[in-house]
Amino acid sequence: MTLEEAQAQLACHRAEIDRLDLEILELLNARARVVEHIGAIKQEMTMPVYEPKREEAVFDNVIQRNRGPLPAESVRRLFERIIDEMRTLQREMMLKKEPS
Amino acid sequence: MTLEEAQAQLACHRAEIDRLDLEILELLNARARVVEHIGAIKQEMTMPVYEPKREEAVFDNVIQRNRGPLPAESVRRLFERIIDEMRTLQREMMLKKEPS
Repeated sequence: MTLEEAQAQLACHRAEIDRLDLEILELLNARARVVEHIGAIKQEMTMPVYEPKREEAVFDNVIQRNRGPLPAESVRRLFERIIDEMRTLQREMMLKKEPS
Repeated sequence: MTLEEAQAQLACHRAEIDRLDLEILELLNARARVVEHIGAIKQEMTMPVYEPKREEAVFDNVIQRNRGPLPAESVRRLFERIIDEMRTLQREMMLKKEPS
């Protein structure tokens, strides 16, 4: 493979990654909107934001269905970050809505 | 809203989250497969795995297109984790393929 051929292939793969990233972003924001709905229900019912059992169920769901190439520990770290960001969003949303 | 109604709504939203998570997982693994192809090209051409300019382009792509509810700093942290896991996968794949 010449350097030019390699660069052309890299450019093609990177365009594919950029496309995938926008799809991932869209799904993350869709997930965030559902989390906001859950936050509103929890706030109305004065339920806790953090539910360790539910978080384990979230990990189980993705790790059991994972076929790679990402290894299970990598999927777990990725969803730890996702859950963490969503919890922050939920808390901030609840703070904003609290009666002053 | 009664507690039963709240629990029914939470169950419905959680099913939606589980569905979204499996879609996110699928896209993350699709992204990982493209990263493996890139790794193979880089290995053949002895190019570096870490390219800070490309990583900034990845962040720019998602942050510019982000319409929320996730804030930009949250999107950045999520994609930092994604890039980090993908780089680990790429390095491990390259090590396995190295001639002994």
